[in-house]
Amino acid sequence: MAIQIPRGTQDILPGEVEKWQFIEQKAKELCQKFNYKEIRTPIFEHTELFLRSVGDTTDIVQKEMYSFEDRGGRDMTLRPEGTASVARSYIENKMYGYANQPVKLYYNGPMFRYERPQAGRFRQFVQFGVEALGSQDPAIDAEVISLAMSLYKEAGLKSLKLVINSLGDQESRKAHRNALIKHFEPRISEFCSDCQNRLEKNPLRILDCKKDRDHELMGTAPSILEYLNEESIQYFEKVQAYLTALGIEFEVDPTLVRGLDYYNHTAFEIMSSAEGFGAITTLCGGGRYNGLIQEIGGPETPGIGFGMSIERLLAAVEAEGAVLPYESKMDCFFVSLGEEAKDKTVELLYQLRQAGYSAEKDYLDRKIKAQFKAADRVNARFVAVLGEDELKVNKINVKNMETGDQQELTLDDFVSAFQQLAD
Amino acid sequence: MAIQIPRGTQDILPGEVEKWQFIEQKAKELCQKFNYKEIRTPIFEHTELFLRSVGDTTDIVQKEMYSFEDRGGRDMTLRPEGTASVARSYIENKMYGYANQPVKLYYNGPMFRYERPQAGRFRQFVQFGVEALGSQDPAIDAEVISLAMSLYKEAGLKSLKLVINSLGDQESRKAHRNALIKHFEPRISEFCSDCQNRLEKNPLRILDCKKDRDHELMGTAPSILEYLNEESIQYFEKVQAYLTALGIEFEVDPTLVRGLDYYNHTAFEIMSSAEGFGAITTLCGGGRYNGLIQEIGGPETPGIGFGMSIERLLAAVEAEGAVLPYESKMDCFFVSLGEEAKDKTVELLYQLRQAGYSAEKDYLDRKIKAQFKAADRVNARFVAVLGEDELKVNKINVKNMETGDQQELTLDDFVSAFQQLAD
Repeated sequence: MAIQIPRGTQDILPGEVEKWQFIEQKAKELCQKFNYKEIRTPIFEHTELFLRSVGDTTDIVQKEMYSFEDRGGRDMTLRPEGTASVARSYIENKMYGYANQPVKLYYNGPMFRYERPQAGRFRQFVQFGVEALGSQDPAIDAEVISLAMSLYKEAGLKSLKLVINSLGDQESRKAHRNALIKHFEPRISEFCSDCQNRLEKNPLRILDCKKDRDHELMGTAPSILEYLNEESIQYFEKVQAYLTALGIEFEVDPTLVRGLDYYNHTAFEIMSSAEGFGAITTLCGGGRYNGLIQEIGGPETPGIGFGMSIERLLAAVEAEGAVLPYESKMDCFFVSLGEEAKDKTVELLYQLRQAGYSAEKDYLDRKIKAQFKAADRVNARFVAVLGEDELKVNKINVKNMETGDQQELTLDDFVSAFQQLAD
Repeated sequence: MAIQIPRGTQDILPGEVEKWQFIEQKAKELCQKFNYKEIRTPIFEHTELFLRSVGDTTDIVQKEMYSFEDRGGRDMTLRPEGTASVARSYIENKMYGYANQPVKLYYNGPMFRYERPQAGRFRQFVQFGVEALGSQDPAIDAEVISLAMSLYKEAGLKSLKLVINSLGDQESRKAHRNALIKHFEPRISEFCSDCQNRLEKNPLRILDCKKDRDHELMGTAPSILEYLNEESIQYFEKVQAYLTALGIEFEVDPTLVRGLDYYNHTAFEIMSSAEGFGAITTLCGGGRYNGLIQEIGGPETPGIGFGMSIERLLAAVEAEGAVLPYESKMDCFFVSLGEEAKDKTVELLYQLRQAGYSAEKDYLDRKIKAQFKAADRVNARFVAVLGEDELKVNKINVKNMETGDQQELTLDDFVSAFQQLAD
């Protein structure tokens, strides 16, 4: 019996992979314009990294990680997201000492979460993300958000909704935390056991609970915005002013939160508002995490970033009916008749490719008619026909498939003659 | 304490990552010219796939796989090489039914083997490879080899050695197998226990044994070339004739073997002969595997491919002192003085990026001198200076850093005026 692909993962095949290549190319170009440089970290990390960065009270760490013991007995985990590895690398490679500050990085690669597979949700998915480390200028918050929005626009998306919030600084968060405990404590027994645990450890996460989302205390919970101190208010206003200056529309949503202690100030999400996009509308999530680098053993360093799933981006493209440009180029297909002519086309084919053209020939010893069909199927611009008669007089017949024009080229200077036809 | 990167893996950082981007881009372009399309398969597969394809007598399967049980109790393995996954996908997606035949695919991604880390050998490494499925034309063997050689040449490598061999068809391999058993059997007790196991299961693999490599019977073992039947000889001669026609030099090495039963006909390796390249000189290995697709549950399908490590390619580039072109482009750096001017540069910066330029500004509230220094460090072509005085009269000063020329541009049509300067 044939072996199947692991559940919740997918093969990206020719015909589909070109969309991925297009998005990646656009992401790379955007990052160059925005001065973000690529970083590639390993697929797996020591499990401890995620316990300390993603946080051991999160669903990701508690239920969704692909963890295993390697042959040396070390606890390893396939990365469930990208920020932790970048932060680890930032510290290990002492990037806080780089001359160019802030350090602006991007990554693009597979991430892994053992979730129930459903439309738009995979166990292996590809995340593109950026991290700007070393600056707490609100202008860089706006830059990071504008980069994410730019990529969606390059992909042709129009139905986008940007939602932002502020979690404030440490002082603001502490005041809010106390207010949350005061709000939920008297009736915490009516909440699920997870929420009961969260009350003291991390009351902000109660607001994220899927089980208790309809409890009446949820809607009346104190908003972080009421607890922002003066500095945090100014910071948040500045971010909003920059977004407005850049012409980027947004909504403020005080219920948008991040549960972990080292998140602060700006939090944002980008959602698709396309009809028929399905239940999971969030395309991208990001925010400021000024405490993260210190949390995992580095010096105090402000940071902000986002992560976005390419799968969801492409699903949104499809939902909006946007079309990504897809160029399938085949400059020349060789058709040959007879063994000697065939051998000669092997040579010409290679020469043409070396000269920079995409070219193909038959590899199935097909009859001449079937070879022409194959040339049609790959949409060749030119078809070069070499039979025994042509070979004898050192010629090859080249037909322009758009115009129907045919020309005899001499074999000895075939490549340069072809160049004149094609360019 | 800070958490470290897993042993045997590496971060690829800015400054180094550009080399990877260059090679990948070249590989992508070459594959387009040669008409190979990208396929992306998951990072992990059901362990059984590798037991059946890589083979359960190999070191990879016995000692080097990253295997784990997922949260659903399934045996999974991080892919140790690329061919098995492509073959699995070929069957699962019924690519044998595609209209365009042969199916020509390439992949590029991380692979995992738990080996002892050493120079040029990592536990996570990146492999680029191609597979051509559905043709047994010797011309495609030559094509696959020429593609690998082309990529090394694009990378600037000159000290390359291509070694080829033929393992013959099934009949030839069987005759050779019997000769090997006859050769080793009388003195098999002098060999290691692995080799004793291999004698009946897979005597060809004895020739690969690292422990017994100096045993006198190794040098006198019967060569496969003496056991090729007429058809296999013709096939091998044709491959050699094509390589010669393409101007690709090679050596025939009858000791180059592949241990698994479904390998046949062409086998090849490309080695670096650069001085100081180190102990591991093989850059690329490949060959024909007409039995593989059937072995893992698909229809009888001829195939050939190769896999190459990008780490080793880059190590060879370094050993030869070749230089990969590396373009770090920064069109404009904004320097500002005063809060209002700073806010305005945030806007101009974004406009310039949207117009396609790479641009940057200060995000650390640096003094003006330090901002100029930062502009220098990123090698900006232009520096745009906005102070309070300029802002009042709606102007910005733009300096060409190559020529020293300065010009005042009006803020209202800054982008189009900048375009005229820069293009």
